[in-house]
Amino acid sequence: MRNFNENTITDAVLDRVGGAELPRAKQISEALIRHLHAFVREIRPTQREWEQGIEFLTRTGHMCNDKRQEFILLSDTLGVSMLVDAINHGSQSGVTDTTVLGPFFVQAAPQRELGDDISGNMEGEPMLVTGSVATCDGKPIADATIDVWHSDDDGYYDVQQLDKIGDLAMRARFRADAQGRFRFWSIKPAAYPIPHDGPVGEMLEAQGRHPWRPAHVHFMISAPGFEQLVTHVFVAGDKYLDSDVVFGVKDTLIREFVREPPGKAPDGNTLDRPYYHLHYDFGLKQTVAATEV
Amino acid sequence: MRNFNENTITDAVLDRVGGAELPRAKQISEALIRHLHAFVREIRPTQREWEQGIEFLTRTGHMCNDKRQEFILLSDTLGVSMLVDAINHGSQSGVTDTTVLGPFFVQAAPQRELGDDISGNMEGEPMLVTGSVATCDGKPIADATIDVWHSDDDGYYDVQQLDKIGDLAMRARFRADAQGRFRFWSIKPAAYPIPHDGPVGEMLEAQGRHPWRPAHVHFMISAPGFEQLVTHVFVAGDKYLDSDVVFGVKDTLIREFVREPPGKAPDGNTLDRPYYHLHYDFGLKQTVAATEV
Repeated sequence: MRNFNENTITDAVLDRVGGAELPRAKQISEALIRHLHAFVREIRPTQREWEQGIEFLTRTGHMCNDKRQEFILLSDTLGVSMLVDAINHGSQSGVTDTTVLGPFFVQAAPQRELGDDISGNMEGEPMLVTGSVATCDGKPIADATIDVWHSDDDGYYDVQQLDKIGDLAMRARFRADAQGRFRFWSIKPAAYPIPHDGPVGEMLEAQGRHPWRPAHVHFMISAPGFEQLVTHVFVAGDKYLDSDVVFGVKDTLIREFVREPPGKAPDGNTLDRPYYHLHYDFGLKQTVAATEV
Repeated sequence: MRNFNENTITDAVLDRVGGAELPRAKQISEALIRHLHAFVREIRPTQREWEQGIEFLTRTGHMCNDKRQEFILLSDTLGVSMLVDAINHGSQSGVTDTTVLGPFFVQAAPQRELGDDISGNMEGEPMLVTGSVATCDGKPIADATIDVWHSDDDGYYDVQQLDKIGDLAMRARFRADAQGRFRFWSIKPAAYPIPHDGPVGEMLEAQGRHPWRPAHVHFMISAPGFEQLVTHVFVAGDKYLDSDVVFGVKDTLIREFVREPPGKAPDGNTLDRPYYHLHYDFGLKQTVAATEV
């Protein structure tokens, strides 16, 4: 266990983790060592480049706080988040496709009533969102829990501007009705660049990439006996649908946000100005345990 | 650029970085994406495991400050630092072998005079260090700059206990004399565990590994026209020579720290108690530019 060269050190490190107690810890450690060493052997970094790598990771860590998760941004922009998503969620008829969680989810979103306006008096064009939650074969799921969150019409989330707006907005948790239906009002979201004033922004610039995501509304839907669904619905026609910086777009998740004239909206409210209407019917996948019953 | 699955997303991400301006940025990005995706595809992480990975990296970043570099520890313990060292420093006759820098180097070490005691009144067994700096064919290099740093006899560096000891100690910068010789007094260092109260310590525990390094003295030696030498000299007989947690041991870097009786030491000082004597003759590699002249 001495005098390693660039070819023998990998086996030496692999040998050292052979005593891991948990088989999964051993498996992950061994794969990490093999792939990480293969990467280093391929690029042959100078000592200065290695230092720059250490500095990049350190600054990425220092950028993380309760409002910003730079390592999730890094995972997202390198396509790792969508790869993990693909590994965990195969496509299934009647089940809504998944996409990335993103860095702006908040655990404790305010509980609101169906039909509420969740825009928190943010300025923007009114948007009515309606939809339903059902099983893969179309049976309504009563009382499903629905988390929604989206950006304002400048592309910023509430948590990026709490100093200015003072409270969470464009974010809520709903309970679907007995027929699995839900509805709420907010403002139409805009396309936006992911936060790019940190290490991930520098990486994107070095890679010749823009930092934009097409406009979308996030949904996280849960119900007992079903896998939690994490997804977005994207605005049809957005110019970034084919170059989403986090690779999250799927055709099945794109919908028209239909511009409607002033007047009586489907939920019974009367508007004195035009509004947008998004409708989406979600399908949840039964958990294995539930299928077995 | 939509609807990626676990097999198509890698090409999509590679395609996205094709516009990088600098060829090296493109090369590193492409290799990173390929190897990182191959790692993820091999281990097939659950969403929860992906979250744990994000949390691990975030905590590693938050552990880094001006006295602790957890990402260097991570690189060291995964064998990456020694791999980078091996890539950059081939073995050459007459040139001292290199090893890891480690996380305890300090840029602005105090300048001291040859023969000074740098122990800062730390308790321990006296140690005289003598040596020389020469070219690969044995010609003395006058005025070489020599940074040295080592642990106390409990295995702690000065920067790990500044609250207690108040100032840097067991650390100095010397200028070799006209014959390339140097000498100083300090205390004999001990084997020590790398800081393992953070994420890297958790990783080592999960991998069934101890966190120990064999006792050693660090040297960083610089002279115009020569490559900077970063190395240690290890204490012969140390029980961790064959299981150094950072894989840094090379046989050529092991020396007896000879225990001498009280009396007149080689530098002319008289000691009333036993002391240890380490002698090492270093060889530096000429830079390519210097060779061409």
